[in-house]
Amino acid sequence: MNIKLTLEYDGTNYHGWQIQPAGETIQSVLEKAVATFFGKPIRVIGSGRTDAGVHALGQVANFFCDQPPDLHRLQRGLNALTPEDITIKHIEFVPDTFDARRDARSRIYEYHILNRPTPSPFLLNRAWHVHDPLEIGPMREAIVCLEGEHDFSSFQAAGCDAMNPIRKLYRVSLDREGDLLVFTIEATAFLRHMVRNIVGTLIEVGRKQRKPESLAELLKLRDRTKAGPTAPAHGLFLIAVNY
Amino acid sequence: MNIKLTLEYDGTNYHGWQIQPAGETIQSVLEKAVATFFGKPIRVIGSGRTDAGVHALGQVANFFCDQPPDLHRLQRGLNALTPEDITIKHIEFVPDTFDARRDARSRIYEYHILNRPTPSPFLLNRAWHVHDPLEIGPMREAIVCLEGEHDFSSFQAAGCDAMNPIRKLYRVSLDREGDLLVFTIEATAFLRHMVRNIVGTLIEVGRKQRKPESLAELLKLRDRTKAGPTAPAHGLFLIAVNY
Repeated sequence: MNIKLTLEYDGTNYHGWQIQPAGETIQSVLEKAVATFFGKPIRVIGSGRTDAGVHALGQVANFFCDQPPDLHRLQRGLNALTPEDITIKHIEFVPDTFDARRDARSRIYEYHILNRPTPSPFLLNRAWHVHDPLEIGPMREAIVCLEGEHDFSSFQAAGCDAMNPIRKLYRVSLDREGDLLVFTIEATAFLRHMVRNIVGTLIEVGRKQRKPESLAELLKLRDRTKAGPTAPAHGLFLIAVNY
Repeated sequence: MNIKLTLEYDGTNYHGWQIQPAGETIQSVLEKAVATFFGKPIRVIGSGRTDAGVHALGQVANFFCDQPPDLHRLQRGLNALTPEDITIKHIEFVPDTFDARRDARSRIYEYHILNRPTPSPFLLNRAWHVHDPLEIGPMREAIVCLEGEHDFSSFQAAGCDAMNPIRKLYRVSLDREGDLLVFTIEATAFLRHMVRNIVGTLIEVGRKQRKPESLAELLKLRDRTKAGPTAPAHGLFLIAVNY
């Protein structure tokens, strides 16, 4: 049986999704819970890695087991076996061919920026606090160029070893919800630190340190050293994975 | 000089607003910070008490000092002297006659209910998790009767010693924002546990354990023993105080 999980997690206390030699990860905690429930080690496949400190509202994973379990019991069991900063929201049977990583057609991320003079006790580790006022108009103008298929080398992490830096962006937007700026981006897949590097550059546009056309220029330049700094991990949320 | 503060706090780690013989409170933390800044003890007056675990997005307080301080420096100083679960959002000079408690014309509270099968890692201690589905229609029908001036004895805490149980409700509403139900209530003032007792009763309406007319009946009965249980403190937020 192939089982699909939809997960929500606060990434603050984890070294990201993927199992690491040292430090707890979402995948390691999940695999421990699944192993305890079924009484044997089982590999859990995630839709993709999230970095240390990154959150998820809709991460997707799958794993195989021999006997079809009672799904309700399994969900309750796994939620009881994982700490309260990880929640299994949905659980369902899927065809054996389903693979959470390989079959993902697109991923939606949000980056949250708290833009006001003082930090919020409710958004510590859950939004990037930028205290100087940002101009949303130029920021919106700047991101339009990102839609479509582009070489995102300028926004790739220095150590990123992706063979192919071309990604297709379906949708990008910037919305204000009170003091919170929400940057939404949907693409087939993302290069390492790509969203955080775009946001770091976008903040410089909002601060008038960079022109709105600068993002279009960076796409053409394909030079990481010309983009802005990497925005902190704790503002980033994996919202959903589409199949 | 009379100084008005507008505060945001996560009440999880505090024994409420008011100074207690044992345990840290918002008021005690604030008075310590103010005393450190000015080098002498100063009494801080709050708009009203909040219970242990209750949060605030717009609590208001005031205090007096001899010399007019630089407000920007004072705000930075107090924010540096308080832990990160308390933020001073605004600070301003007000006339000497201003009193945060006595002059408050109305208080707005929100009560947050997470209504879905599983808890959320992002709303632990910040919403009441009710996992069985609630019917919002009957709940909305039930609250209409609360508007206006009423004797709220049925929703008063058992030990509440208010001389006069009559309060004037300006506004009450129930909105759904995804999985979150937000109950908003504005009144001149509130009896002890009044919002939480109304919410506890309202949840029984949403579960079909009680009829929508039951709230109107309770107002007439003026009998605390007939209302529902007290909803937990951690779903309650003091949103704003109007002067």
